[in-house]
Amino acid sequence: MQEATRWVLTLNCPDQPGIVHAITGAIVDSAGNIEELQQFSSTDTGRFFMRVDIRTDASREDLLARLEPVAERFSAEVSLDEAGRPVRTLILATKAGHCVNDLLFRQRSGHLHIDVPLVLANNEALASLAEFYEVPFEYLPVTGPDEKAAFEARILQVVEEQQIELVVLARYMQILSPELCAELAGRAINIHHSFLPGFKGANPYRQAHARGVKLIGATAHFVTSDLDEGPIIEQNVVRVDHTRAPQELMAIGQDEESRTLTQAVKWFSEHRVLLDGQRTIIFH
Amino acid sequence: MQEATRWVLTLNCPDQPGIVHAITGAIVDSAGNIEELQQFSSTDTGRFFMRVDIRTDASREDLLARLEPVAERFSAEVSLDEAGRPVRTLILATKAGHCVNDLLFRQRSGHLHIDVPLVLANNEALASLAEFYEVPFEYLPVTGPDEKAAFEARILQVVEEQQIELVVLARYMQILSPELCAELAGRAINIHHSFLPGFKGANPYRQAHARGVKLIGATAHFVTSDLDEGPIIEQNVVRVDHTRAPQELMAIGQDEESRTLTQAVKWFSEHRVLLDGQRTIIFH
Amino acid sequence: MQEATRWVLTLNCPDQPGIVHAITGAIVDSAGNIEELQQFSSTDTGRFFMRVDIRTDASREDLLARLEPVAERFSAEVSLDEAGRPVRTLILATKAGHCVNDLLFRQRSGHLHIDVPLVLANNEALASLAEFYEVPFEYLPVTGPDEKAAFEARILQVVEEQQIELVVLARYMQILSPELCAELAGRAINIHHSFLPGFKGANPYRQAHARGVKLIGATAHFVTSDLDEGPIIEQNVVRVDHTRAPQELMAIGQDEESRTLTQAVKWFSEHRVLLDGQRTIIFH
Amino acid sequence: MQEATRWVLTLNCPDQPGIVHAITGAIVDSAGNIEELQQFSSTDTGRFFMRVDIRTDASREDLLARLEPVAERFSAEVSLDEAGRPVRTLILATKAGHCVNDLLFRQRSGHLHIDVPLVLANNEALASLAEFYEVPFEYLPVTGPDEKAAFEARILQVVEEQQIELVVLARYMQILSPELCAELAGRAINIHHSFLPGFKGANPYRQAHARGVKLIGATAHFVTSDLDEGPIIEQNVVRVDHTRAPQELMAIGQDEESRTLTQAVKWFSEHRVLLDGQRTIIFH
Repeated sequence: MQEATRWVLTLNCPDQPGIVHAITGAIVDSAGNIEELQQFSSTDTGRFFMRVDIRTDASREDLLARLEPVAERFSAEVSLDEAGRPVRTLILATKAGHCVNDLLFRQRSGHLHIDVPLVLANNEALASLAEFYEVPFEYLPVTGPDEKAAFEARILQVVEEQQIELVVLARYMQILSPELCAELAGRAINIHHSFLPGFKGANPYRQAHARGVKLIGATAHFVTSDLDEGPIIEQNVVRVDHTRAPQELMAIGQDEESRTLTQAVKWFSEHRVLLDGQRTIIFH
Repeated sequence: MQEATRWVLTLNCPDQPGIVHAITGAIVDSAGNIEELQQFSSTDTGRFFMRVDIRTDASREDLLARLEPVAERFSAEVSLDEAGRPVRTLILATKAGHCVNDLLFRQRSGHLHIDVPLVLANNEALASLAEFYEVPFEYLPVTGPDEKAAFEARILQVVEEQQIELVVLARYMQILSPELCAELAGRAINIHHSFLPGFKGANPYRQAHARGVKLIGATAHFVTSDLDEGPIIEQNVVRVDHTRAPQELMAIGQDEESRTLTQAVKWFSEHRVLLDGQRTIIFH
Repeated sequence: MQEATRWVLTLNCPDQPGIVHAITGAIVDSAGNIEELQQFSSTDTGRFFMRVDIRTDASREDLLARLEPVAERFSAEVSLDEAGRPVRTLILATKAGHCVNDLLFRQRSGHLHIDVPLVLANNEALASLAEFYEVPFEYLPVTGPDEKAAFEARILQVVEEQQIELVVLARYMQILSPELCAELAGRAINIHHSFLPGFKGANPYRQAHARGVKLIGATAHFVTSDLDEGPIIEQNVVRVDHTRAPQELMAIGQDEESRTLTQAVKWFSEHRVLLDGQRTIIFH
Repeated sequence: MQEATRWVLTLNCPDQPGIVHAITGAIVDSAGNIEELQQFSSTDTGRFFMRVDIRTDASREDLLARLEPVAERFSAEVSLDEAGRPVRTLILATKAGHCVNDLLFRQRSGHLHIDVPLVLANNEALASLAEFYEVPFEYLPVTGPDEKAAFEARILQVVEEQQIELVVLARYMQILSPELCAELAGRAINIHHSFLPGFKGANPYRQAHARGVKLIGATAHFVTSDLDEGPIIEQNVVRVDHTRAPQELMAIGQDEESRTLTQAVKWFSEHRVLLDGQRTIIFH
């Protein structure tokens, strides 16, 4: 006899009555038990969003066979994944190691369900860190437009060859081309070292110091071609005071960066992040 | 034609498959739209909890007629209330005004849906505050066991005569008798001026100072006869340092007390607080 | 015999060796005891800042006579005030009462050392609130440029006649003229309902919703003619999620607004806020 | 010519007038510039505490020669150290790696000024982690009282041979003997996985779940023979809700543990932690 398995179902469709009842009916018909159910009706876009944790003995095929007629009836996009399955993740990096270390440490501790077939970097600094975590590391220098194009081509190649589901820019300090942004829409997460929309662009800690803010922060967001304007997934702040030089703000802020990025990646890997136009829905 | 009304349904029953589907079916049959649905299966007690926001043209009677067979089938306790209906609330107070002021200010601002037919106090200090907010105020001195008994009898009388649904101890500094605690079980909320379970009992700020803690807090909890041990509804903390005397800790902590108590009362008034044994479920 | 009094000394001057020793020498010579001493050397402006709590039996004149030669020697601006003396404060308001209520409640509770000879408003809504706190209230409608000029003239008149030391814009929704900003430089505090520099200008909660931020905040800052760009005194944030409509963000944010503004006013009244170019130094 | 060096001076003595002036005089006489000065008079113990950042061309000997007469006059304990000198630190560990990883990652990043000549563990699990950070690792099993005594003897031996200034119990799950606690008084820091004084003893996350708290936390404190009662250095909390099982609380709490411990170690290494009876003074 097959073991009971946990599945995560996510769904979005035009808002209309009867969806929850219909979907839960399909689950009951598969002898499934609903362990968690969250929903949201967006008044901005008129769309309905749902995430369901299901435990059932039914196979994936059985479940989908029950769900698909409902999805069709409501014009819904449906995704069904086994809970806890590691999401295949490509990490892009430069020199700063704090975000990469946090991601890989939690992955190895079992708190973050991602598989990382490659850390791709435009700097050699993190080679030994990757080696320690037994993750393949590849260094491709980016010194001009040609190398940048080659680097981006390599990203796409890895995405395809390695069935990458998520690209994480772990303080990868290059701006991606509009074409690559479009290609990775909804599956590339960046960490910006400020509390967006404050201090967009370069040197946010220097800007924060000049403006004399009393809290500094970090923002994890989806990458779009509109720089630092992609849908926000998570933000955190930490209190600072007048004594802090820009260099110290940077050191203090790095903790927020790594925990904010890791949190965003974790939610993504658990199918808790859904896109609603320019905003995200986070089902905690 | 009747206007669409918003209802809040809460429910708890032994956990078992099919509940969500059955309940949402009853809602669909009442031409209701589900605006929010939250659920939780407690592994501690084996019970299932649900809260649903429903918008429908159906009458309360229609809705209940659909829901009751389902409730019976699953042995569920069901409550149905119109969303936003003010909860009838009795406030108990002594001298300190910060919690009472916060509750009444928010009530008047329209952010807190409670009706307060009476502030009952064992001190005259807050009479003018109540008058400002146009809330009846009654002063009954408590100088010995007889007066205490009379005060408690008056509480029960008000609860009955005024159809009180919630009793709030807004820094009411008396311990209620076990009988009164039992009578008000699940509908009396107290604010304790510490981060429980640390610093139970009297003078928590003095204890906090002596122990040299770096954060002080407040805890809103249901009143039980087991002092300071009732189910916790909400907690907050604020950072302090070595320079603070106990008196200053008290002044700093009062903000946490009032916002924590008001938050707990708000959630209660929105039917977001459900009891699961000694713990609470808060459907945010 | 004269009672020992507590004084607050603040000072700023070009940074140079020997200042602390010289100032503490003047205090020792006045038989003063230093209860708290804080200092900061700004690398941005090359200036030195100090705040000292002194307890002494000496009179103000004695103390100043000792301090003045030192001040002259170091080209220092010195201010000396009795600790806890209420700062004369003019409150400007419109309709929203949460900030005014918070200021006056804390003033009356003894936690905020300000005297408020007048609440001046361009709306009648808060008349009864002021009356409850026994603070004079004056209503001057602002319907066009002439009334606006008259309102500003009245501000300056009150400032002069009432020896106002601080003007608080407690959600006073008018932009002050450059002339008035200049006149009140360093002694007018505004509360902006966003986490500046994000969401400057009108409707910040609407902007915050559209951008999908995960934290909203409030900023207390000195008023300058450069709108929303004045030196920041205090900031706070609170977590929100995708379910919040702009109207709800506003309700949630009001708590941050009132506590942020009250905090800034409290620090100002305790001579803890010093200006260092476009930034503030806050001696906690 | 000798380069200007930064020194950290800490001092405590019976509270009395004139100390600040006398100490700053000694610094001026050494041609020293005061970059930061913090002080505190404890009303609990009647003692005065001070920490001064000094920049000077004078040698350590010169500075001490100036300071010692003042120290003697005021019966002060004085310590003088070069700012940023790494503090020699012994880390004790078991299986859990999150605290050790955080300490070593920050040490290597240059944010935490400690030298770690040894990680001493009663489990082999963290050998590879130590190796990655190029820190010596030693494994000594503790299966009974004899091995425990041997382990403690080894601690003392390392402390002596390696000039250890700080012992960090980075989730080292053994209780130290009263003799060892006494020996290491004021120089051993432990991390407790709860918000003390709540949930002392074993399994704090299980206790927190049973009690239904809404915030969980971590506490870094000096080790004393009175278990979980040593002077608190730092505390942090994080919000949780009813959905969290004890196992999840543990995972969530580990972030607070590591950042709380690292913060305490950082402050210790910067001579910002002073003992005032059972409480600590933290000069931020």
